[in-house]
Amino acid sequence: MFLDENFMLSTRTAQRLYRDVAAGQPIIDYHCHLSAKEIYEDRRFENLTRVWLEGDHYKWRLMRSFGIEERYITGEAEDKQKFLKWVEAVETAIGNPLYHWSHLELKNYFDYRGSISRENAEQIWQIGEQKLAREDFSARNLILRSGVEVLCTTDDPADSLEWHEKLRESDFKVKVLPSFRPDRALGIEKADYSTYLERLGSIKSFADLKEALKKRLEEFTALGCRVSDHGMDAVPFVPASEAEIESIFQKRLAGEMPTVKEQKQFKTALLLFLGAQYAQRNMVMQLHFGVMRDLNERIYAALGADAGIDAIGDAVSMKDLAAFLNALDVQGALPKTILYSLNPQDNAGIVSVMGAFQTSEARGKLQQGSAWWFNDHKQGMRAQLSTLAAEGHLAAFVGMLTDSRSFLSYARHEYFRRILCDVIGEWVESGEYPCDEALLRKIIRGICYENAKNYFDF
Amino acid sequence: MFLDENFMLSTRTAQRLYRDVAAGQPIIDYHCHLSAKEIYEDRRFENLTRVWLEGDHYKWRLMRSFGIEERYITGEAEDKQKFLKWVEAVETAIGNPLYHWSHLELKNYFDYRGSISRENAEQIWQIGEQKLAREDFSARNLILRSGVEVLCTTDDPADSLEWHEKLRESDFKVKVLPSFRPDRALGIEKADYSTYLERLGSIKSFADLKEALKKRLEEFTALGCRVSDHGMDAVPFVPASEAEIESIFQKRLAGEMPTVKEQKQFKTALLLFLGAQYAQRNMVMQLHFGVMRDLNERIYAALGADAGIDAIGDAVSMKDLAAFLNALDVQGALPKTILYSLNPQDNAGIVSVMGAFQTSEARGKLQQGSAWWFNDHKQGMRAQLSTLAAEGHLAAFVGMLTDSRSFLSYARHEYFRRILCDVIGEWVESGEYPCDEALLRKIIRGICYENAKNYFDF
Amino acid sequence: MFLDENFMLSTRTAQRLYRDVAAGQPIIDYHCHLSAKEIYEDRRFENLTRVWLEGDHYKWRLMRSFGIEERYITGEAEDKQKFLKWVEAVETAIGNPLYHWSHLELKNYFDYRGSISRENAEQIWQIGEQKLAREDFSARNLILRSGVEVLCTTDDPADSLEWHEKLRESDFKVKVLPSFRPDRALGIEKADYSTYLERLGSIKSFADLKEALKKRLEEFTALGCRVSDHGMDAVPFVPASEAEIESIFQKRLAGEMPTVKEQKQFKTALLLFLGAQYAQRNMVMQLHFGVMRDLNERIYAALGADAGIDAIGDAVSMKDLAAFLNALDVQGALPKTILYSLNPQDNAGIVSVMGAFQTSEARGKLQQGSAWWFNDHKQGMRAQLSTLAAEGHLAAFVGMLTDSRSFLSYARHEYFRRILCDVIGEWVESGEYPCDEALLRKIIRGICYENAKNYFDF
Repeated sequence: MFLDENFMLSTRTAQRLYRDVAAGQPIIDYHCHLSAKEIYEDRRFENLTRVWLEGDHYKWRLMRSFGIEERYITGEAEDKQKFLKWVEAVETAIGNPLYHWSHLELKNYFDYRGSISRENAEQIWQIGEQKLAREDFSARNLILRSGVEVLCTTDDPADSLEWHEKLRESDFKVKVLPSFRPDRALGIEKADYSTYLERLGSIKSFADLKEALKKRLEEFTALGCRVSDHGMDAVPFVPASEAEIESIFQKRLAGEMPTVKEQKQFKTALLLFLGAQYAQRNMVMQLHFGVMRDLNERIYAALGADAGIDAIGDAVSMKDLAAFLNALDVQGALPKTILYSLNPQDNAGIVSVMGAFQTSEARGKLQQGSAWWFNDHKQGMRAQLSTLAAEGHLAAFVGMLTDSRSFLSYARHEYFRRILCDVIGEWVESGEYPCDEALLRKIIRGICYENAKNYFDF
Repeated sequence: MFLDENFMLSTRTAQRLYRDVAAGQPIIDYHCHLSAKEIYEDRRFENLTRVWLEGDHYKWRLMRSFGIEERYITGEAEDKQKFLKWVEAVETAIGNPLYHWSHLELKNYFDYRGSISRENAEQIWQIGEQKLAREDFSARNLILRSGVEVLCTTDDPADSLEWHEKLRESDFKVKVLPSFRPDRALGIEKADYSTYLERLGSIKSFADLKEALKKRLEEFTALGCRVSDHGMDAVPFVPASEAEIESIFQKRLAGEMPTVKEQKQFKTALLLFLGAQYAQRNMVMQLHFGVMRDLNERIYAALGADAGIDAIGDAVSMKDLAAFLNALDVQGALPKTILYSLNPQDNAGIVSVMGAFQTSEARGKLQQGSAWWFNDHKQGMRAQLSTLAAEGHLAAFVGMLTDSRSFLSYARHEYFRRILCDVIGEWVESGEYPCDEALLRKIIRGICYENAKNYFDF
Repeated sequence: MFLDENFMLSTRTAQRLYRDVAAGQPIIDYHCHLSAKEIYEDRRFENLTRVWLEGDHYKWRLMRSFGIEERYITGEAEDKQKFLKWVEAVETAIGNPLYHWSHLELKNYFDYRGSISRENAEQIWQIGEQKLAREDFSARNLILRSGVEVLCTTDDPADSLEWHEKLRESDFKVKVLPSFRPDRALGIEKADYSTYLERLGSIKSFADLKEALKKRLEEFTALGCRVSDHGMDAVPFVPASEAEIESIFQKRLAGEMPTVKEQKQFKTALLLFLGAQYAQRNMVMQLHFGVMRDLNERIYAALGADAGIDAIGDAVSMKDLAAFLNALDVQGALPKTILYSLNPQDNAGIVSVMGAFQTSEARGKLQQGSAWWFNDHKQGMRAQLSTLAAEGHLAAFVGMLTDSRSFLSYARHEYFRRILCDVIGEWVESGEYPCDEALLRKIIRGICYENAKNYFDF
């Protein structure tokens, strides 16, 4: 039955593995977009619209796809009106992960077990108002109630990390660690690149840039950072000499825009440098690619980035990805790496490329990231898990992350774990893997928690 | 059991939804290739070969793949021989949609419920001869018996539309409307382009061309046309100035072939112009892409186009598609649009790009077209429905169309509706959506009929 | 239950079809990499590591992905240690075909029916040592026990074929035939190209090269060769004149490296020549594409090719593939052809392109090869079978091949047959195809054995 204890669990094996093993594992959220400031300040939320819809561009898209007017999405309408319009869009959103996530969030945090429908909308709004007023609905308490052990935010090298420092000195029991995401340092094609560089220090040369990033990396790791992250269209691989890179960089400093090829050369060089730095520090490198961002000029002009106007990019060149990984590996400088493509067509390619670079430095040294963003749903997760199992080694997988801006998104771990147990239960009950309870529990515990714990070494 | 009342319906929910809701909905066939002339003249068919195999290049391919000689496919063999050879090819065509379509067609129109096999071939041929002689097997009666409310043919801007005018004045109760498909006006690379332009009027400049098309568009809409259609390899997006376009066009008028880049510039400009025209008239723009046509020179020389020698093209650039949609959107000129790619790899990309351009002008202003041509089968439809549900909003979907040249193809609506109910029944019975009868009925009615009715506004 | 008689067979129909029809069919292994020398010499194996892990780069990858040290994979560790580490990696390899293959191999050849786990490792090792000492575990006996009727090795045109000659004169009842794989003759970009040409004879011109290959082809066919094979990144199609090809070839003979475009021109020309030669001899042409090889320089330097460092290449241009097939077809020189892409994204494209070139020269003249290498698992096979069924004609399929270097790999035919029967059983029991026992048996027998027998005409 919808949303009962066996939600998404179609076999007895799945039900047992979820209930006895997966459900109780702590969460290591090794990549999210939560605000360290909001965690430190222990933010409170007035109503469901604030905690649920504000900034959630996944929900905005669903509303727009259902023909809801923009004023009820990001416009001037009142919070409650926005909530009611959201309910209108979601009540028939059959087959959409937002339907599942939203129900899991209401169940887990608000103890509401009905369905989200126009009929129930008023009741849900009231429950929201009542409960959000309670202390256990503050940012920190939502995190604690979710069983989170470690949480890695996403931070620019130029960020001060002041909130991470304060959190470190606070009594909050959950480890909140920064992640190093130097996209802007790589963004040589951006109009404000020079302004950005100034924030990193006095940068007169490519060597200065590398030195500045290295220094910041040390400050990040001093605060417990073990993970980096990169967002990109595709993995660049256009090698060039140090002299060429320096000349490209000088050109940019002088205010001239490098050619597209030069931009790729610069990015290749800087990424290779950073990869080696991560390897030296035994850090994990995350690469997120296969995205097109900010496609709708009209909405971008009105709302800026992260407005629900991104999409899946064309299939990424596996040749470049392999060449990039090889360039690091051949000099003994390939860090532990997690690869995420937004394009589900890339699944099989990524897992097969990974296989060519695995070594004993870590179990599953190269990882395919869990189904990401537009793929973060049942079919997307099943595709990722099956491909990884068939062409890699599923039992070495570091599992789920939230990648979210919302404190309620920890429900996605439940979603992932249910789907994981369902896939595995199906294989066992259809006789594709023996019903060896000890091994099954080990596999589930590994993917839900232990693999990440061992892999990241927070 | 094969072809019984629960054909393709694996759950009780699916069976109930199909029987009580989907089966009885009227059909809005918003895109097909039926001949207005044949409808007006109420064509009759001599035998099964005429109504079933003549011009059906889907069936020709299956026969060729089974090693049947061409003389029994498009050659000089007698009608009955051709029929018998078709039976030979289809009787073991397990997993092929032609197997299903053919059986549904015999069941729905001929009341034949056996299987198509060599053993039954003679009997089927006889039934065909007997029934086709009856009046209720004429073109108009086949359409009426199928529950069709509206039917949109596919017409060139240079077509006279005389048969549509006659149909309008006739007593035929089904709305038969023209669709505007200006492929030839965009086909600047074709050898006969100048000859074609002459059919549109006296065209001395790009401005003349636009004016001529606009005028024809007005004549089309005067006859009830609400839909346009474009067939293309990929969506072009190479912007150029008006002056550049004029110069490319003049070059072509002078008999010189523009470069490939210039062809794309011309097509981009003309498509953007037409898109804005459609938007002004609240018309729907259909884009069909991802196809390679007429690949086999030998067969093309013998039989011409539509001979079963087309194939799925390479994955289409989502970057260009997004840029094209944005170029219209940013000037407030993006019409309601339906996107079809023949390449199933494009599913996720298309749905994610659509999401960036949805507005409240229509529920599901941008639509992914139903699984098309080589994808018009169970796995193709399931893939399209699931991706649209997971990344867009399935409940806003305008549903099925036939895209067919045959009067028997309305059976494909039954096929689609059964598969749709099966997918939804599966989600309900596996607990992924609540068994809320009212909402489920609303979703099914919407996708089968009401969404199209509201969207196209015929 | 795992690995019982109904392994992978989820319906009664599947179980019946497998048991009564599929299981007993002989094997025609029309493409493998077994060594004719080892077959002639009737090689024996000391222990499981020798017969199972030596040279098996599929297993090496799995071990590396699980973090096993290289010394236990390809290094100096003792055989038994390597075996124990393999068990460690495989025991939790849920969802991986190696898990299934390995269990099937132990069951079929060693009569071991337990699971492969650390707990059972010692016992399995002992069984291996005992049984491998027996005569019925020699290379020839393993082949005979597998029910193999014909077996095609993979041979270079410059190979002497001495072992095939000896086998022909021997009393070994299985037909062991050479296949013609002229990759090195096409490898104009390789550093050792000239050295290779010397092995083919005195080659002073492109005409000489063609003549030499033609001569070798005759020697191959004299020994029963009916199949050729080509490995390539993608199917090249860049036409050029004979004079241009000659000039490119002369350039290479003079020690200069042709440009990438020239390399493609050369390959196109030579492949078109060879295709026509195959057609003349009624031979089958196999094209394997969509691969990237030897991606990891470090491992390549240590171990050379076939070291588990290959991956799936980017999606292949269907346009080039279609143009290549058409160039042969238009001159009446398109041989029977089997197309394999390592990229599962290419499935639908390949089947649709094939459909444009089918003729009555053979049932299924163009074939999509069975799911290959990284796709040789349940989901990969199901994808290939379903796509071929939906867009081509499954009943004309020539079925499974091993493509293996191991004498135990015939278990993969059992794996394929079980999955095939499962797919077909599913269709029958869900009412998508009638339960017509005679037709079902015909389809299964065809795909398992008879189609290949008719198609290759060994």
